Amino acid sequence: MSIVVVGSVAYDGVETPHGRVDRMLGGAATYISLAASYFSPVKLVAVVGDDFDAADHDFLAGRNIDLSGLERVAGGKTFFWQGVYSADMNDRTTLRTDLNVFADFNPKLPDGYKDSPYLLLGNIQPALQRSVREQMKQTRLAGGDTMNYWIQDYREELLATLKGWDFLLINDSEARMLSGEANLKHAARKIMAMGPNTLVIKRGEYGAMLFHNNQHFVAPGYLLDRVCDPTGAGDCFAGGFLGYLAESGIAPGGGNIDRAALARAVIFGSVMGSFCCEQFGVDRFRTLTRKDIEARFREFKSFTEF
Amino acid sequence: MSIVVVGSVAYDGVETPHGRVDRMLGGAATYISLAASYFSPVKLVAVVGDDFDAADHDFLAGRNIDLSGLERVAGGKTFFWQGVYSADMNDRTTLRTDLNVFADFNPKLPDGYKDSPYLLLGNIQPALQRSVREQMKQTRLAGGDTMNYWIQDYREELLATLKGWDFLLINDSEARMLSGEANLKHAARKIMAMGPNTLVIKRGEYGAMLFHNNQHFVAPGYLLDRVCDPTGAGDCFAGGFLGYLAESGIAPGGGNIDRAALARAVIFGSVMGSFCCEQFGVDRFRTLTRKDIEARFREFKSFTEF
Repeated sequence: MSIVVVGSVAYDGVETPHGRVDRMLGGAATYISLAASYFSPVKLVAVVGDDFDAADHDFLAGRNIDLSGLERVAGGKTFFWQGVYSADMNDRTTLRTDLNVFADFNPKLPDGYKDSPYLLLGNIQPALQRSVREQMKQTRLAGGDTMNYWIQDYREELLATLKGWDFLLINDSEARMLSGEANLKHAARKIMAMGPNTLVIKRGEYGAMLFHNNQHFVAPGYLLDRVCDPTGAGDCFAGGFLGYLAESGIAPGGGNIDRAALARAVIFGSVMGSFCCEQFGVDRFRTLTRKDIEARFREFKSFTEF
Repeated sequence: MSIVVVGSVAYDGVETPHGRVDRMLGGAATYISLAASYFSPVKLVAVVGDDFDAADHDFLAGRNIDLSGLERVAGGKTFFWQGVYSADMNDRTTLRTDLNVFADFNPKLPDGYKDSPYLLLGNIQPALQRSVREQMKQTRLAGGDTMNYWIQDYREELLATLKGWDFLLINDSEARMLSGEANLKHAARKIMAMGPNTLVIKRGEYGAMLFHNNQHFVAPGYLLDRVCDPTGAGDCFAGGFLGYLAESGIAPGGGNIDRAALARAVIFGSVMGSFCCEQFGVDRFRTLTRKDIEARFREFKSFTEF
């Protein structure tokens, strides 16, 4: 059951208290695709320049990720982002953003993508997210991510986009901004009235909450021995979340999804986000196995059960 | 199985986004005792002035709380604290602290208290906590709370006190300050080397973590419809936590406590903390029943199970 993933593929320069890497593979769609690929086949839609390394291409292709939708712009350069994290890693400062070829990204789905049952839209301009949604012919579940910039400055466009989504994943401050409600229970109710009947609110190290119809589920974060680099953790959460639902072949009847399946999807999302933080960039996914993922899922059970 | 509770009994003036009360019953020992009293008999040790209302005395006495250790200083006034909460209620500013009779508090246990198997020391000067611990003859479990002030300015005294404790309950920023470790897993290891083999790290709306020997348990916070007044929530957590362990008659063998019992104690602590926030001051405990508590415990199961 394949997932179409749309978003940025980038090079990142990252500095954390544990070290610094000047240039490494990154981007929301990269993280989402890698995490989802442990559960389901992925079809990636993104754009890169001709500086995109063959080794990075091969790494993604080797993880069961279809790259026929990865557009390569001759003479262009790949999106570059550079940032530095605070000592406690709860804040980061952007030092540089070179959109490069990403500035003119206008995602076109290859024909072989349009019948995929699952769609995950990384954080890009809401109008582009909507155009991708409309190119898909028979999705069972479609949704994605957004950010403060679109919530503040592209509100109407975002609301028009959200109407067509089954699920939305955002962090807690964005949920408060989007809804205008400080209380997350009230915020969730307002956001679900905008379209998505499944809402995941990500809370970083504190875990995640899921709302679906009148139910909710709360998962604490995984307690890591060392957070090396949190870049991409939220995207890996999204990839693990939808990856698991796709693997399970979830086909919502009248908008309803089994509560137990959604709860497990949140845990698999948390598992993938936690692995992501253990090494710089996407490095953890060079060695991570499905067996590791299952073991951490069982760990979640053991430290939350009562 | 009775619990001796030591700490402040006070009058509070509190302002939150939901309203303002100029003078109401408060204090750490009050909140701890009320919460614990739903599970086990409580023996309170504290000091008040002769302005202490008969109605407040009767309210506590009516909740199965032994007040023979409540010293009343003639001509003195009860500890008064006044504070105002920020709009999101994650911060509060102290406007006034009149220690009054609490400044000379030197807790003396009535003889009828000294054989209690459980001891919960609210946040007071570490040397006083230690003196109470030494007056007890056969505790099964002793421990308590502390705060940034004692951690920073009374470190040696606090460390000498912690050596005699079985459990410590503190919030996450205090755990980082006490241990000098930003990572909570490392912080827990260092703190447990100071004495307590059970550590609860409270994270406010995000829940709580428990460490015991080499195991840990993480509970998310309860999602309230409305947080009216968070004053006392941490103390109510402590009361529910030890109250449940006392009710269960926990007698650690060689320092070991059953993991399942500790996990349930954390949930009962969370339940009591969440109820506390629903009304101003101690008002929720005027109507709360054990049946309400059991229902919320089951709710915790339903929104965390996967």
